[in-house]
Amino acid sequence: MTEPSDSTCSSPVLDLLRQLHESLASLDDGEVATYIPELSKADPSAFGICLVTANGTVYEVGDSAVPFTIQSVSKPFVYGLALEDNGRGPVLEKVGVEPTGDAFNSISLEVGTGRPRNPMINAGAIAAAGLIGGKGRVNRFKRVLEMLSLYAGRPLAMDSSVYRSEDETGHRNRAIGHMLRNYSILEGDPIEAVDLYFRQCSVSVTCRDLGIMAATLANRGVNPVTGRQAIRGEYVENVLSVMGSCGMYDYAGEWMYKVGMPAKSGVAGGVIAVLPGQVGIGVYSPRLDARGNSVRGIRVCDELSRHWDLHLLNRQAAGRSTIRRQFTGAELNSSRVRTAEELVALRTSGGSIRVFQLQGHLTFATTEVVVNEIMENFTRIEQLVLDLRRVQTLNESACRLFWHLVCKLGEAGKQTFFTHADRHPLLRRYFKAKLGRRCEELFRAYEDNDLALEACENRVLSDVLPGRRTDHRVRAAEFELCQGFEPEEIETFSACLVSRPFECGVSIISVGERAAELYFLTRGTVSVIVPTQSGTARRLATFSAGMCFGEMAMIDRAPRSATIVADSDVECEFLSLERFDHLRKTAPEICIKLLTNLSRSLSQKLRKANRELSVLD
Amino acid sequence: MTEPSDSTCSSPVLDLLRQLHESLASLDDGEVATYIPELSKADPSAFGICLVTANGTVYEVGDSAVPFTIQSVSKPFVYGLALEDNGRGPVLEKVGVEPTGDAFNSISLEVGTGRPRNPMINAGAIAAAGLIGGKGRVNRFKRVLEMLSLYAGRPLAMDSSVYRSEDETGHRNRAIGHMLRNYSILEGDPIEAVDLYFRQCSVSVTCRDLGIMAATLANRGVNPVTGRQAIRGEYVENVLSVMGSCGMYDYAGEWMYKVGMPAKSGVAGGVIAVLPGQVGIGVYSPRLDARGNSVRGIRVCDELSRHWDLHLLNRQAAGRSTIRRQFTGAELNSSRVRTAEELVALRTSGGSIRVFQLQGHLTFATTEVVVNEIMENFTRIEQLVLDLRRVQTLNESACRLFWHLVCKLGEAGKQTFFTHADRHPLLRRYFKAKLGRRCEELFRAYEDNDLALEACENRVLSDVLPGRRTDHRVRAAEFELCQGFEPEEIETFSACLVSRPFECGVSIISVGERAAELYFLTRGTVSVIVPTQSGTARRLATFSAGMCFGEMAMIDRAPRSATIVADSDVECEFLSLERFDHLRKTAPEICIKLLTNLSRSLSQKLRKANRELSVLD
Repeated sequence: MTEPSDSTCSSPVLDLLRQLHESLASLDDGEVATYIPELSKADPSAFGICLVTANGTVYEVGDSAVPFTIQSVSKPFVYGLALEDNGRGPVLEKVGVEPTGDAFNSISLEVGTGRPRNPMINAGAIAAAGLIGGKGRVNRFKRVLEMLSLYAGRPLAMDSSVYRSEDETGHRNRAIGHMLRNYSILEGDPIEAVDLYFRQCSVSVTCRDLGIMAATLANRGVNPVTGRQAIRGEYVENVLSVMGSCGMYDYAGEWMYKVGMPAKSGVAGGVIAVLPGQVGIGVYSPRLDARGNSVRGIRVCDELSRHWDLHLLNRQAAGRSTIRRQFTGAELNSSRVRTAEELVALRTSGGSIRVFQLQGHLTFATTEVVVNEIMENFTRIEQLVLDLRRVQTLNESACRLFWHLVCKLGEAGKQTFFTHADRHPLLRRYFKAKLGRRCEELFRAYEDNDLALEACENRVLSDVLPGRRTDHRVRAAEFELCQGFEPEEIETFSACLVSRPFECGVSIISVGERAAELYFLTRGTVSVIVPTQSGTARRLATFSAGMCFGEMAMIDRAPRSATIVADSDVECEFLSLERFDHLRKTAPEICIKLLTNLSRSLSQKLRKANRELSVLD
Repeated sequence: MTEPSDSTCSSPVLDLLRQLHESLASLDDGEVATYIPELSKADPSAFGICLVTANGTVYEVGDSAVPFTIQSVSKPFVYGLALEDNGRGPVLEKVGVEPTGDAFNSISLEVGTGRPRNPMINAGAIAAAGLIGGKGRVNRFKRVLEMLSLYAGRPLAMDSSVYRSEDETGHRNRAIGHMLRNYSILEGDPIEAVDLYFRQCSVSVTCRDLGIMAATLANRGVNPVTGRQAIRGEYVENVLSVMGSCGMYDYAGEWMYKVGMPAKSGVAGGVIAVLPGQVGIGVYSPRLDARGNSVRGIRVCDELSRHWDLHLLNRQAAGRSTIRRQFTGAELNSSRVRTAEELVALRTSGGSIRVFQLQGHLTFATTEVVVNEIMENFTRIEQLVLDLRRVQTLNESACRLFWHLVCKLGEAGKQTFFTHADRHPLLRRYFKAKLGRRCEELFRAYEDNDLALEACENRVLSDVLPGRRTDHRVRAAEFELCQGFEPEEIETFSACLVSRPFECGVSIISVGERAAELYFLTRGTVSVIVPTQSGTARRLATFSAGMCFGEMAMIDRAPRSATIVADSDVECEFLSLERFDHLRKTAPEICIKLLTNLSRSLSQKLRKANRELSVLD
């Protein structure tokens, strides 16, 4: 099993599992079950461990591929199917959820009603089998088998010789069936329910299957290896609850105390344990203790829990890391390139724009952290951007808190914008259910942060620079690059420029073209677009009238590195390289001023980029 | 309670609690406890709710400041103190942890041993009181009171009239005490243990206190409001386990199924519920149901669990968000400014440097995600940087996985560097325990990522550019800014330069000084240092021979924006502004070339910064 040759690049997790396997392989307490002849044929030394993370990474050691029958480990899964078929209420009427403190084969029916105490004892499991929907016994077992196969991520089958053996010796279970029929807990033919129970117990699995099945419960019902849903998420907590309180029979209290993972064992030697949101564990070792639990199976769970800190109730405060980053509109700007005056205004007044980048799973506790942080800054915030790009899941509690938050901000005249909200359709549905057609009034969504930030900035700028002209025609003398020019230098320089209009949407410069001119934007706005790795186009910057682009033409004369698109109808004046080279000889002082201004502008952009880098890092 | 005037800036969480409080205030089922006269004096309509997050945010509505006695809600806390005083094994010998399915005042002793089944029934709680350490009854109660006060975050006191009332009527509990003494479960005077139990039950608390006490259990024993430890973290899971399996008496199974939070109620009407890592809840409403649980208390927990998705077993896969960001040495560089040749080499070969920025709580499941990602890239990684700056906690399981990972990488000749590891001393201690004095061989730590990245880059560069000279003297003609100069231009230009040496550690330029010259670094390295908001100095960049600094002197002639410090003995040549202005008149072509080269250099830096921004965002 433990091949030294591959230990260099095997995972440390696998190494630790191998050590555990090795240290427990010598443990040979307990006896193989003999109550049905087929079970007694198992190899007593067989021993496999499989740990599967809720993300779907599978670690397996030892006899993880040896088949055996699932037996009582089937009980929680069939109970889950009964919940899906009937709903919580009707199932609770037929089977309780209280631990009994009794052994696995105890009949434990409630006095008066005859209701089995819980679905982990045989009586409760037979009652649950009686609740499986479908026409006829063949079809019902087919549904059970399909459900178990979804959990395992491969087609499972029944071991017929074990089934025959169960069927021949199962008189106690038939007695239970009749008793349940007597109390009307079972409604049709009790022997059909008992037969389904025998069949479900005889399904053949491996230790690897059990690990993946457990991880499916850890992953809220979605098999993390195949990505397919095996049970509706809302019922997983119920299945895990009965495993937690009743899964280990009369050992349940101590199990929760010491191991702290919902678990279930079977008489063929299988054990599953689940740490919700984290890992599923499957163990196979046929030697059983007096309670009918696999000796090594129990030890594996116990050691893993203690040494790897897997106790369910051992948790650190989870909320703080929900806010990946927050910044104001004074710290980071959109890609819209602003004038010096606008930049000063944003650095002074952009603090009222607050962007929160969120991450992870948004539940009550994690969303509360966000809401609390926002409420503490309530008076300082005028425009709020909530970026959901890195949010993995978002539940209804989170929607409810966001809804209240957005209303509260709205009442105070403050605006909220969501970005990347299309990844979480539940949020929009929640707002829509609250607001109907007026949804868009409060649910303002932008594709990405950059667009949301630009919109927020525009609002701040129109407040603090009310006289700002946004669509006037700029003359050459007003250009940043012409700063410090004498009147006669302006005249000489203007004479070198050629004017050209572009229609909205036209590419003024295309990536890869030969660079032949420097452009002065006299009217309208243009955007710098680069292709991204994912194949989509990304906006690098947007320039407005009074700014220059394509200036690298004068410097390195290399092909264009980006595409420039007209965002509106645009007018440009351009300086060709020939004209520039001519100026260089005839009026070098103009070139020196131009290059000095260019260097200043580049160095201001570099300082801004470095400032943004320090905010982002 | 619900004051409309402050609802605008009240938290949405508080609003939702207020709604819940309002909707349940009309519920008047149940009766105030009358078994001791003092309890019957409570106002039946009193109703308070307090929710406290594991981060310490307190939300309270209704009668959250009304005092009442803690009663049985004291049981889990005193049990926790018994665990701290005696350890798990000795406590388990005296009190079991199995649910009984019996009522709160059942005697439920184990047949034969006389051991109470669990510490939440009176018999078990009296046995736990008998295990509290301290000399004499006064001192023992003082310890209990101090412990409860740590949980509540304020000095609590006993209500003497309730104590007297309990003492006068407590015959059943005295009977239990003698029975426990009979079985030697109690070892001194049984009446002393019963008296301590009466006193602990008579401690006066408010609903707010209960909320904070519950949140302390949710926060692994640290009171999240005061930051003080009330119980050692390792015992919290045991206290919560018995609350989970036995806290609600014969309702335990259904409670875990429906509400899914470890909880405890008291006959005065108090209830606590704990969602580990997330929230603690305290409720006060004196009307009790037939089982002795507060009617509204149960309903509040039930509604909060259902509507706010607080079920313990309802979890999403947690691991994925542990990796905040990963990048290679080809994508982002250290602040060491490199030559064009070096930059090309790093973009080509820097992929073997991999930096992982981690965040959140590092446990088995979250660390596994990191280890798995690294192992999948095992052959591509030569140098690994693990940045722990944003890691909040790190447990022994995480240390164990990192240890195995680092050994495995080391065996394959690969190096691992930790940054910000001083925040998590446990990690270094773990490596030290494994390696002793040889610890530093595998536990390589850098103060920050930038220094670690520079070291990794230097190693890559010495591999791929073996002939690279790192400490030679560079002549003016070799400078980037002199690219394209004709030989006679070099000569003219060199004549304008003045040479000057600086000793290691000296400030060559100081922030705020008048800018008077442009420096050419001919030998050694210098760093650009800026003061940060936190008052410490941050390295912006490091330059080596062949590079220029102070170039803004020529452009904006503004005061220096950063300090430049010599990292080694350094030689510089500088061009004064006077000389530059002279050149401008006598040899403009030299100035045009100089400014063109400067613009190219600035624009390359800007592109690199923009590339880095897109990696970071």
